[in-house]
Amino acid sequence: MAKEIKSQNITWSDGDVNHEARTQRNGHKAAILWFTGLSGAGKSTLAQAVEKELFIRRCHTYVLDGDNVRFGLNRDLGFSPEDRTENIRRIGEVANLMMDAGTICLTAFISPYRVDRQGAREIAPAGKFIEVYTKCSLEECERRDPKGLYKKARAGEIPEFTGISAPYEEPETAEIVVETDKNDVQACVRQVIDYLIEHEVLQVNNLG
Amino acid sequence: MAKEIKSQNITWSDGDVNHEARTQRNGHKAAILWFTGLSGAGKSTLAQAVEKELFIRRCHTYVLDGDNVRFGLNRDLGFSPEDRTENIRRIGEVANLMMDAGTICLTAFISPYRVDRQGAREIAPAGKFIEVYTKCSLEECERRDPKGLYKKARAGEIPEFTGISAPYEEPETAEIVVETDKNDVQACVRQVIDYLIEHEVLQVNNLG
Repeated sequence: MAKEIKSQNITWSDGDVNHEARTQRNGHKAAILWFTGLSGAGKSTLAQAVEKELFIRRCHTYVLDGDNVRFGLNRDLGFSPEDRTENIRRIGEVANLMMDAGTICLTAFISPYRVDRQGAREIAPAGKFIEVYTKCSLEECERRDPKGLYKKARAGEIPEFTGISAPYEEPETAEIVVETDKNDVQACVRQVIDYLIEHEVLQVNNLG
Repeated sequence: MAKEIKSQNITWSDGDVNHEARTQRNGHKAAILWFTGLSGAGKSTLAQAVEKELFIRRCHTYVLDGDNVRFGLNRDLGFSPEDRTENIRRIGEVANLMMDAGTICLTAFISPYRVDRQGAREIAPAGKFIEVYTKCSLEECERRDPKGLYKKARAGEIPEFTGISAPYEEPETAEIVVETDKNDVQACVRQVIDYLIEHEVLQVNNLG
């Protein structure tokens, strides 16, 4: 059985390679960190900064974001309501596979609808889905407008743009709420890391 | 930059957490081991046996198979030609994400069509997709019939069953061919491991 693994230095010798074996090998628990929030709120920036901090702490991590999902797995999906739902469903499934593989999987998608986020939550085992509401006022997101999307949306060039012409449904029970218009990136990272320590996702090897 | 990581014991301190950084941390290269072959040829058995051997050798691994894909990510897909193609496409995309995350990802699906396997190959960077033709005569697969599927297919209860009423297109250029009707599981595992050593997917820490 996987019970025999006590450190990376002892050879694992019996049983299936399952989630428990991988977790013991890795020296930390697996989880999904689901960043949700408006465009420009800082989801990707924060996910990457948290990943960097976790990597320094010897964790196994992976970030799913528009760059590696929209043009790959979900390249067949557009922006209709059905396709948006399917987009989030597939990301939830892949995040869960990554988590099952022992990884702390960070996802950075607007994911504006509560029901879709709830669906992603229900794919994962209880306690493994950690919603990180990346909160930032619309005014501040629009002021930042890092990709020029708000400007285009205001000009009517992007239909159904979240926050402008399509709703963003705020999380009501997110495990973590970071306020990127009030705190800097490092303070937000610290908040996420503290949560992971408190909930024992990070363990003795990962405390820095 | 990630160049600074020389072992798991030196703290990584700069740069993005990218594929190179993960690979250096893990101490082995990432790859996709794509097992293809008839139902009953031993794909899942072999993938799990190879995974176990790799895990013992300190590698980071994950097996994608019907159990964790068909009822999750691909639950919306049936067995029409279009759906079979989409099934394999998505598996190829997820395997590539797993590989990008630093994992040796093993996939165990019949994947009977050359064009679909070629599609999965093209998703991955050059050299990362290793096709393992799990070769076994139809007669032997039908004799084993571990899930009773051949019996049902012969009775006409399963339409378009690969090998009986639907084609299996043999790989012409698989990186590895294992013959499960001629060699036992351990010999086949050895063949795969030898390939991974020879092609430097496994490195000094993984040589046993």
